[in-house]
Order: sequence, then C-alpha cells, then structure tokens
Amino acid sequence: MSSDKYAPRPEDKFTFGLWTVGNRGADPFGTQVREKLSPVQIVEMVAEVGAYGVNFHDNDLVPIDATVAEQEQIVSEFKKACADNNIKVPMATVNLFYEPIFRDGAFTANDARVRAYAIQKTMRAMDFGKEFDAETFVLWGGREGAETDGCRRPDVAIKRLRDALNRLCEYNIKQNYGYKFAMEAKPNEPRADIYMATTTAYLAFIETLEHKEMVGVNPEVAHEQMPGLNMTHAVAQAWEAGKLFHIDLNDQYPGRFDQDLRFASVSPKQMFWLVKFLEDVGYQGMRHFDAHAYRTEDYAGVKDFARGCMRSYLILKDKAKRWNENAEIKAILAEIEATNQSYEIKDTESLLAENFDRNEIASKGLQYEKLDQLTMDILFGVD
Amino acid sequence: MSSDKYAPRPEDKFTFGLWTVGNRGADPFGTQVREKLSPVQIVEMVAEVGAYGVNFHDNDLVPIDATVAEQEQIVSEFKKACADNNIKVPMATVNLFYEPIFRDGAFTANDARVRAYAIQKTMRAMDFGKEFDAETFVLWGGREGAETDGCRRPDVAIKRLRDALNRLCEYNIKQNYGYKFAMEAKPNEPRADIYMATTTAYLAFIETLEHKEMVGVNPEVAHEQMPGLNMTHAVAQAWEAGKLFHIDLNDQYPGRFDQDLRFASVSPKQMFWLVKFLEDVGYQGMRHFDAHAYRTEDYAGVKDFARGCMRSYLILKDKAKRWNENAEIKAILAEIEATNQSYEIKDTESLLAENFDRNEIASKGLQYEKLDQLTMDILFGVD
Amino acid sequence: MSSDKYAPRPEDKFTFGLWTVGNRGADPFGTQVREKLSPVQIVEMVAEVGAYGVNFHDNDLVPIDATVAEQEQIVSEFKKACADNNIKVPMATVNLFYEPIFRDGAFTANDARVRAYAIQKTMRAMDFGKEFDAETFVLWGGREGAETDGCRRPDVAIKRLRDALNRLCEYNIKQNYGYKFAMEAKPNEPRADIYMATTTAYLAFIETLEHKEMVGVNPEVAHEQMPGLNMTHAVAQAWEAGKLFHIDLNDQYPGRFDQDLRFASVSPKQMFWLVKFLEDVGYQGMRHFDAHAYRTEDYAGVKDFARGCMRSYLILKDKAKRWNENAEIKAILAEIEATNQSYEIKDTESLLAENFDRNEIASKGLQYEKLDQLTMDILFGVD
Amino acid sequence: MSSDKYAPRPEDKFTFGLWTVGNRGADPFGTQVREKLSPVQIVEMVAEVGAYGVNFHDNDLVPIDATVAEQEQIVSEFKKACADNNIKVPMATVNLFYEPIFRDGAFTANDARVRAYAIQKTMRAMDFGKEFDAETFVLWGGREGAETDGCRRPDVAIKRLRDALNRLCEYNIKQNYGYKFAMEAKPNEPRADIYMATTTAYLAFIETLEHKEMVGVNPEVAHEQMPGLNMTHAVAQAWEAGKLFHIDLNDQYPGRFDQDLRFASVSPKQMFWLVKFLEDVGYQGMRHFDAHAYRTEDYAGVKDFARGCMRSYLILKDKAKRWNENAEIKAILAEIEATNQSYEIKDTESLLAENFDRNEIASKGLQYEKLDQLTMDILFGVD
Repeated sequence: MSSDKYAPRPEDKFTFGLWTVGNRGADPFGTQVREKLSPVQIVEMVAEVGAYGVNFHDNDLVPIDATVAEQEQIVSEFKKACADNNIKVPMATVNLFYEPIFRDGAFTANDARVRAYAIQKTMRAMDFGKEFDAETFVLWGGREGAETDGCRRPDVAIKRLRDALNRLCEYNIKQNYGYKFAMEAKPNEPRADIYMATTTAYLAFIETLEHKEMVGVNPEVAHEQMPGLNMTHAVAQAWEAGKLFHIDLNDQYPGRFDQDLRFASVSPKQMFWLVKFLEDVGYQGMRHFDAHAYRTEDYAGVKDFARGCMRSYLILKDKAKRWNENAEIKAILAEIEATNQSYEIKDTESLLAENFDRNEIASKGLQYEKLDQLTMDILFGVD
Repeated sequence: MSSDKYAPRPEDKFTFGLWTVGNRGADPFGTQVREKLSPVQIVEMVAEVGAYGVNFHDNDLVPIDATVAEQEQIVSEFKKACADNNIKVPMATVNLFYEPIFRDGAFTANDARVRAYAIQKTMRAMDFGKEFDAETFVLWGGREGAETDGCRRPDVAIKRLRDALNRLCEYNIKQNYGYKFAMEAKPNEPRADIYMATTTAYLAFIETLEHKEMVGVNPEVAHEQMPGLNMTHAVAQAWEAGKLFHIDLNDQYPGRFDQDLRFASVSPKQMFWLVKFLEDVGYQGMRHFDAHAYRTEDYAGVKDFARGCMRSYLILKDKAKRWNENAEIKAILAEIEATNQSYEIKDTESLLAENFDRNEIASKGLQYEKLDQLTMDILFGVD
Repeated sequence: MSSDKYAPRPEDKFTFGLWTVGNRGADPFGTQVREKLSPVQIVEMVAEVGAYGVNFHDNDLVPIDATVAEQEQIVSEFKKACADNNIKVPMATVNLFYEPIFRDGAFTANDARVRAYAIQKTMRAMDFGKEFDAETFVLWGGREGAETDGCRRPDVAIKRLRDALNRLCEYNIKQNYGYKFAMEAKPNEPRADIYMATTTAYLAFIETLEHKEMVGVNPEVAHEQMPGLNMTHAVAQAWEAGKLFHIDLNDQYPGRFDQDLRFASVSPKQMFWLVKFLEDVGYQGMRHFDAHAYRTEDYAGVKDFARGCMRSYLILKDKAKRWNENAEIKAILAEIEATNQSYEIKDTESLLAENFDRNEIASKGLQYEKLDQLTMDILFGVD
Repeated sequence: MSSDKYAPRPEDKFTFGLWTVGNRGADPFGTQVREKLSPVQIVEMVAEVGAYGVNFHDNDLVPIDATVAEQEQIVSEFKKACADNNIKVPMATVNLFYEPIFRDGAFTANDARVRAYAIQKTMRAMDFGKEFDAETFVLWGGREGAETDGCRRPDVAIKRLRDALNRLCEYNIKQNYGYKFAMEAKPNEPRADIYMATTTAYLAFIETLEHKEMVGVNPEVAHEQMPGLNMTHAVAQAWEAGKLFHIDLNDQYPGRFDQDLRFASVSPKQMFWLVKFLEDVGYQGMRHFDAHAYRTEDYAGVKDFARGCMRSYLILKDKAKRWNENAEIKAILAEIEATNQSYEIKDTESLLAENFDRNEIASKGLQYEKLDQLTMDILFGVD
C-alpha cells in the first residue's frame, strides 16, 4: 500500500465517528476484544491516519451519568486534543438507542415521558455539538420501530416523529445554532422493523415538517444495501431534492445483519458508482466512514481498516476520473446523447399526432454490456 | 370453504386485473399452461367469483397493433360484458414494459423518441380508461431502471420521470379527466435496479411535481416485501400523507423473484396488520388483487385462487374486528394509552428543566409478547 | 389464552436453553434491560411455565474462570434445582464463540493452540453435560468462518473441522458417553460468512467423518430462514437421512439479523408445515426453543414469551391433525395418490418404448390453490 | 478492451450454453428483443468470441416435437458446425422444466407418468449428448419443488429423486456412456421453493445413491448468491469431497430473481476468491458461463457480453497469481502458517492436561484488515 497518490488530505473531508475506530469488537455473540480508548486517544488515531474530522454521539464523549464537572473536564480535554491534532468536529449526533428507557423507541415511544426525555436529550446533544462548532446534526432512530405492530399504529409513530422534529427545528432556530439535520434511515436491527426504513421514506417525511429547509438525509451504504436497494439511486434522489446533507460510507453484503465493513471491501462495483456520483455532482459535504474493523484486529489493524476506507475512496475517485476520460466510453456516451436529443415534444397535440416506428427505434443495440465491461476494466485497473 | 360469512360483496370493492385471473402460467423457465381467455371471458369469471371490478393495461384489452375498428369492436364488446355482469372498471393503466422499444425504460429512456412515445401511449391509455369511467390511473415503471449505472445518471432519470408526470397531469387537466394517478414502486425485476424502488421513494418524488395533488401511490405487497420491507409501514406513511390512492394485494416471500401469490397465503401475520390498518383507518378505495394462480392450475384452480384472495381478506377483516374487541388486548392498550398521556411538554424551557428518572421509566415490562401472542390466538382462531 | 387444550405437558418434550429465557435483552445497539437470573432461578421459571427440560452451554452454568470448587458448588445446586422442579437436561453444548480467543474460529482457527483449546473445552463440556445425563451434544460453530477469504482456504477449514469432530467422537467412545452430536448450521452472524452455512452442508460433511453414525444435525428455524430457505425441506432431508438428532424452534423474518423470535410469531404458515412434518413422521426428540423475548419485556413478559412458544406449537400440532382429517383435503390427496400410482416402470427397455401423451397428462388442474386455501382456513381456524 | 493478455485460449476451457448467447432477451415482463439464431449460428458466434465449447439442453438443439428425420438433420448440421469451428460439446443436459407436463415437477412429480416420462426424456438426452461425446451430464431440477408443501411431503420428493438418479446411473452403466452427472441446485424460481436448494443439499443427497461415484455437482454462482450464500465455500466443500464435476459462472445480486449476469460484473470481489480457489486447487473442468446479455443488447452486444465473461475470468486469474506472489501478503500468510504450526495434539490425555493461556493467545491482531485491503489493491490494479 505504498502509493502516495491515494494518501488522504484534509480537503478530502474524511471523517470517522468516535464509535467507529473506537469500536471494541463486541457483537451479539462475543465480548470486547480491544481495550477501551479514551476520546483523546481516538482523536490522536484519527489524526494519525490522516482524516479531517471526528464525529460523536453525546455519550461517546460524555458518559450519560457524568456530572457537570466531569463533562466540562472531558470537553476541555477533547477540545484541546482536536486543536492539537487539527481535527474538526463537523457532525454531532445523539444516542437514543442504548439505554433501556428507549427499548420501545425514543421520539415514537408509547410513553410520553420517554418521548419528552428523548427530545430533551437531543437538545442537550445539540448544545454539546455546538461546543465544537458541529454544523450537521445526524438523527438515527434505531429504536423507532416495532416487533409487533399491535403496539402502536405506524401512522401514530409518524405523527410523533414529526412533532419531535418540529420541536428540534424550533430549538435550532431559537438557539441560532444553524444546524442542518440529517436523518438516517435503516430498515431493521435492532428493531424487527424500523419506521422510516429507507432514505426515501425520510425524504417524503421531511416534506411534511414545519421547517423542512433545515432537514435533509444521511444515507448509509450498509442501511440501503441491507434490503438490497441501490445506494446510489437513493443518494441521487436525495441530491436531486437538495437534501444530501451528510453521508455514511461503509460496506455491506445484502440481506444480512448490519455489517459496517471497511468501505468498498464487499461491493467495489456498487461503491464505484457511488463515488463517481458524489464526485460528478460536486458533493461538498463530509465523507464519513461509519464502519468498524473486524473483530480479529488489534488497534494496528484498526488503523489498517481506517486507512483502507480512505484509500479505497480515493482509488475509486481516481477511477471515476478515468471513466469520464476514457475514449471508448466517451464514444458510447456520445451516441447515447445523440438519441437523447433525437426528438423534442412541442405540445400535446403534435405529440399525439406523431407516428413512432416502434420496431425501428428498438432495433439498435445499446452497447451497455460493452459500457459495463469497460467499467470493469477501469475498476480492475486494466484499462 | 363453506361459510357465507366470508363471501365477497360489491361493497368490499374487490377487483382483479385482466392480467391476473387471465394469467396463463408462463414464467422465465416455462411456457403457458392455460389457454388464452378473451377479455369478455375474464369479466365473466371475475363476476362469477363475486368481485366488484376489473382493471386493465391498455394492451390487456386491445392488442398494440389493433386497428381503430378492431379497438372499437373490442371496447364495445367489453363494455357490454361489464354491464351484463355488473362489473366496474375502477382503474386503468398502461403497459410500458412489454415491447422491445421499452428495453431501456419508457419515461426515463435515453432515446427521446422512446420517452415521447411512452407519454403518447399513456395519454391514449388515459383516453381509453375514460371510456370505462376509470377513476384511478396506475403507473408502474417496470423498465425505468438500469443494469449498469453507467448508462445514465440516476438523477437524470428522476428529472425525466418528473417531466413525464407533469405532462400527464397537464393532459389530465386539459381533458378534464379527473384521474388520480397512483404510482407503483418495485425495487427490481425485470431491471436489475428499478428507479423509485419503494413506495416511499414515490411519496418523496410526488412532492416535486407541478400538480402533486392529483398524484399518489399504489403500494403492492409483493413489491415492498421483495426487499423485506414492512408493507403496512409503507401504506401507513402513504395514508398519513393523504396519498393512498390504490393498493395491490397479493403475497410474497422476501428476497425472491416477484411471486404475486394468492393474498395472505405466505405471510398471514403481516397481512393481518395490513388489513387491520386499512379497515381501522377507513380506507375507501379498491382492494385490487395483483396476483395470479400457481402454474399447476387450470381455470377451475384460477377461480379457487381468486376466491381465496377475497376470502382471506374477509377472514382477516373479521379478525381485525375481534382484535379490537378482545378484552385482554383492550386492557393492554389501555395501559399503553395511560403512558401515552403521562406527560405533556409545555415549552422548551420547562422540558429542559425536567428531571426524568431513566431507570424508573424503563423498569416496567411492556407486555408486547403477550399482546402479540393474543394476536396469534386471534389469527389461529383460538381466541 | 385460556384453553387448557394447549397447555404443555412433559410428553411434549419442550425445552429451553438457559440462555433463552435467561436472555437479558442486550443487542448490538443496546445494553441489558433485565437483571441477571441465576441458573437455579431459570430452572424454576422453566418449570413454572410447564417445560420438560433445560439445556445449557458450559459457560451458561459455570463461568469460564470458575475454580473447581465453584464449579462443584454450582453443579450441585443446579442438580438439586432440576430434581426439585422435575426438569431434565436432555442436551448440552459448548460456548466456542464468546471469548476473544475464538475471534478467528475455534475448530477452524488458524492458530493451532486455539483449535486445541477448543477441542479441550468441548471435551470438558461433554464431561460436564454427562453430570446431568444429557444425551445430545449440540455443536454450533459460530466463529468458524471468515470476513476475508484470504485468511484461509475454505477447504482447509473443512479438514480442520473434520479433525476436531473425529477427535470428539473418539472421546465420546473412549468415555462411553453415548452422546449423539447434533451440528447446527448458520449462514452468517457473527461472522460475515460461516462455514457450513446450512443444515445440508453439515449433512454432507457428516458423511466424511470416521464415526458418522454418532453425528447428526440440529436445524434451527431462524438459521434456515435467514437466507430465505425452506426449513421444512432441510428438516425433511435430515429426517430422511436418519440425522434429525435435535431441533431449534423459533422464528425469523428472512434476510435479516438473527432474530430468535417467539415460535411461529412471524411465519405461522411455514411453521405449520414444519410442525406437521415433525408430527406426521413421529419425531421423538426434543422440541427446543432457541429464542428469546423482546427487549421490551420484563420477566413476566419472558414467561408470556415462553408460554407462547409452546402454545403455538400445540395449536399447530392440533391444526396438523385437523388437516389430516379434513374431508376436502383427503379427497384432493386421494386424487394425488391415484396419479402417483398411475404408472409403474418395469424396466428401462419398456420405459424407452413407452409413448407418453404430454398434452393429455398436462391437461388437468392439480387443485393446489384449493389445497392451500383449505390449509389457510385451518390455520385461521375457520375450517 | 485491447490487451491480448486476457484473450481466451482453448486451454482455458471456456464454454457457453446454446441458451446463453442464444438468449433472446425475453423476461416475465417483456417479449423477445433479439431474433432467433439457429444452433449453427450460435456455434459460429461461440467460435468467433474464442470459446472452447458449447453445451445444450436436448430441446435447445432439437425441438421437442421433431421427427427422427428432423433430429438427424439437425444433429448432422450441428456436428459439422462444431467440427468446422473447432468447438467441443463437453456437457449436455435435459430440459425438464419448460413444458406444461412438468408443472408439478419432473422426477418428483406426483403423477407417476410424469416421473417416468422425465426419466425417459433424460435417457434420450443422454443418448443425444453422446452423439457429441459429451462427458458431463448436468441435471437441474427447476420444477422439483412446491408452492404449497401440502402437495407432497418433502421426504417423498427426495425418495423419488433418488429413484430417478439410481435409474439414470444404471442406464449410464448399461450404455457404457461414462457420463459424470453434475447436479445443479437452486433455491427458488420458477418454483416458490425448489427441493435441493443448495449445492451442499446435493452433496448430502449424492451420498445416498447407489452409484454415488458417478454423481457430483454443478454449482452456479447466481444460484448460491440468490440466498446470499458464499459460492466459494460451496465450491470448496464440493471440491474437498471430490465432487466438483462442473461449474456455472455468471453473477448475481443477492436476494433477487435469477439474474444470470455477465461473469464478475456485480460482485468482482467474491468472484476473485472463486477464481483464485479454482486456479489454486488446479480445477481441470470446464468454465461454463451460464449467463446472458442484458435485454438492451443486439447480437453485437451479446458478443461483448461473452467476451467480457472470459476476459474478467482471465483478469481475475492473473490477479490471483499476483496475490500469491505479493510480498506483503506472503509475509502475513507466513505469520498465519507459523501459528498454524504452533501446537500439535499428541493424544487426548496430554491435550486435557494442557493449560492454554486464553488471553495471551487472543492478544495479537491478526492483520486481516491489512490482508483484505491488499487484496482490494490487487483487485483495483494499484498493487
């Protein structure tokens, strides 16, 4: 892994969550395999591997039972570590899923006290993120869902979620925080079915909010691929709607538990289209890796993992450029563009009068196999 | 299957597509097993089994190469058959997927002539549906997708789709047709990835249309369950947004080809929640069965299939009523409602000052296992 | 849930693992919600709900770092609890997945010391199980797998697994334990890909063992349904091969994380066929529920969960009997049997000389839609 | 696509089925888009793209209703075309799925006449394959399955399947054909559930045959990946058992309809491990591409597709070699091998006496993230 060509730079806007490189390797069937790192140690690691920033849930940094004095101490040390290591905090989020109180949901829980506590906790996490000048606030409703749909009507859950978001937007305005909220969808795990199962469910939901302009989405590769959906299509719909406020990069084999694997390590072809889209449209936001190292690794392996995420992104970015410049591909795209301009609808009347020759139009091969194999050649580096 | 209690009545609004009971049992690995029925014969069958109405794609009724005279003859005969059998045509749709011209998409195809032809064909299908007073016009974009994302940027596809919908809405207004458009999503098959993969993708997309008030969705059980999503959650989000204009009922095992099985024959528990939701909210639209009989069947078996769809719906509707009236369930729901009213947020200031006792709130079991087992008892008929 | 008809009796052979009703509700995104119960308390609960027996992994009962004295104390108390509550221990197993030492596998790990330790630990667990007269020894190789297939060749893993099994069979013989080993497959989670992904992979593997007669399988509903496979088909193949030594009952929505839900609470139709098969063939083994309660529950809810598992099994068993006795179903089965006896192959020569009328044979509908809807009627309790 | 380095040669043993490059682009929602090619034309195309051989189902070559004279004519022309183009026929198979007579299965159908006819048809297809010196006979039981498990007990289906295989093996012996039978599994489509859902189900089943030495498997990438299983693991188990008699290469996104995509065009990483395994173990059989071109293609595109299949295989084969020679990878593998030899079990007694230091053994990172990222570098061509 020698090439400097793929070394991360600050302008690449690569970020990691405290919970990602700090992940200790526990899973439903096994205990931790790596010792606990302090947030300061994690920042140092993030800096060492060359990332731009670090993100956190409130309780990644400050334990839920910390006193005010403890919180101040932690914040102070963490600020200093970020400054010393030139690490930014572009995004903050809130943990609404770990504690037993959220076992039935947070914003959508049946118990009004839970809903109120979740909103309160989020407001405090917003305060907390602003200590670090975070600009994006991600909301993942991991417990907003059900094992039995008898527990509440799903439309009731939507109304409760809307109420919470409206209140948080108001708070954002009141405090003059200027956050962009980025909603993160997931279809299942830890709940059997999570409400707002996909990025597009949130895109629709956002349109019903009082301050929809400050709310967008945070699509995650793993979460879209778990149900076998095309991540790039979800990202494109978000982008086209002006709602791509953040993105979570990792990898995932479809139809499985949430794997959060090293970026592009399972589905490099799909990740190529994703990176190409982000680069082609000029996405300016963070490239956040919401992933963690295999349980077989020590912290040296965690660094390999983190470096690999960024490296593969930059390799794919480079390949996207090659794709755009490839002569054979350009020739095919030119033919496509020619057909794209082959007809213009003037008005309904003339359209209805038109006589299209179905068979003639369908007679020509579209060269998509060739186009895709040229793409594979670029992906394989044999172009 | 003797009980009259579950016999279909017109007010149940059960409909079948011509392509459903008329399906001849071909699949990717086998030829037809049932002889071709005429549309008139299908209407007679639909009437015989006790349905309310029949729906069609333009080319289910009139072959794509029919002359005007042939079309008029077919329409005349079909109208008579509907009238004779007291069968309504509540919904019409257009076939934008069968012909080779649509191999790269219809509204989103790269060739502008294809896009124009698709719009023209849809307008004519709208004309055609109005001959039968259809009120809903369903659009399923089966070919709007890609095998290789190199062929077009997915956001370009969205823009093209929007342009087509805007034109069709204009035509709806111009012709004073008063159609409600119902968009039907599907994640894949026949394309590797179909744009607008889920019902919620359409809910988001609709918000970007010029005449969004006349466009809603037509969620289909199989299409939501193919990627393992919760159909009832999708329907609930559509309903809550005022966009549930139509529904396609059938059944599907997740993670497979599009099965279109007899309603509730694979996932009766999931279908119970769906029927319960539709009945609880008072959905007034059609209950359309977009399904077909096994390839092992002759037309006697097709009738068994069709009767089974309606029967299972009515059984589940009856069970939904029993659920709502069950004393043990009502007791649990009353406890849930009590916690739902346990707190009221006055204002942000007071909320932030509140001290919630996390452990106390989390200490009580929520009785969801009991609630769900009581549901199973009702489903099993042992309540 | 009043009917005594579905109350569990000892002869139903219902068992629970210590880890099932003792599950504390932790998951990858949340901490425990229920206090820890001692093994003795769990036995009491298992007795209270009416089960026949309890099963355990070595470390469910005795902590991995317990001294000999501590182990003896625990064993003594647990034996007394079992005797006092008339609870049997029909099956024992070994935990080869929780500790960091197993992060790369147990019997298939690259480090020979890990493999040796895993074999040693299993031998000791076999000793331990015999203290309670366990007759079946289950082996689930949760860590036998890979995230990257670069780490070892999968056929090497198979050879290592075979070596371990051969050694354990030898030990079984040497100690005169008389165990039946039951191999439990799973496709993924916690590993990205687990070797021996399905029950049938083990059926094939077993044929390559030195003492294959003492090794069979323990199919689990959730593990077969995770990849969308038909559990009953796997069980039938095991049964037909004389290898159904144990079974793990629960429920699972396909294409998701390992849910271990209350038996028959997700897929009652599929579970009906499973129970019907087990009862029709006269399976005499344990009905083990490898499931756990929702995270929303306290221990009262855990009892509801446990009772629900057994109740649904007995309801389905009763329905299987009704199915076998249903007149309409019997009539269809009689027609099927008539075609089954419609021809007898005498010898190859006469077979090759035969002239079958393809169209005539294919002309009759097979009534499977009717058969399946009659099944639904029985499932719904409206037969 | 210029590099000669990846041009196919006869010794690569690349084959295509008549039904693959001859596929006309029909699917469940669309009609054919490519004109019909004669078998002779297909052989010419297969030769043109540089393949070694062609395979066929009986009815790919000879229509089911052909007279003896017609069959002889077709065979004669096809033989000549093969000879003229230096194309071999290494494998033959039989179509037991297309005709209505097989709607309930072939070898497992309830009607004994269907079972007998299926055996007769297979014997004739065996005769037919021997006209071309085919050495492998593939059996894919596409219709051996069920939509409702009420139609037959799955163990009955297994017994019927066994009876058929035993008869076919006898015929193979009697005729002195010397075929190797290769059983091809698939989990679903066209049936809801197909018996023998995975390659390993067949590996287990084969052990129960009278002449098991002449029966092996034909794993197919798409069929193993449809349920999300690891193809390489299935192939490795088959290989290790001496049963890898044939292989079907293509590509498939998990959890979907059977896509049969261009080899390595969806999951290049997974296909890398597969090719590496085949090459590392020295697999000498055919590399058969059971795939077809996108529906967007004309026959020029079909050739692009076919060339792409072979090219990607050769690229991956080259990368496998690079992987084996990579210095950093070799260093990691050497460390792995050192741990593999770190302990030797002498006997049970000494093993039980051993004291393993769990924590020490688990303390070292295993470098699998690094190993996998080095693999990605090779895959991306940036090593």
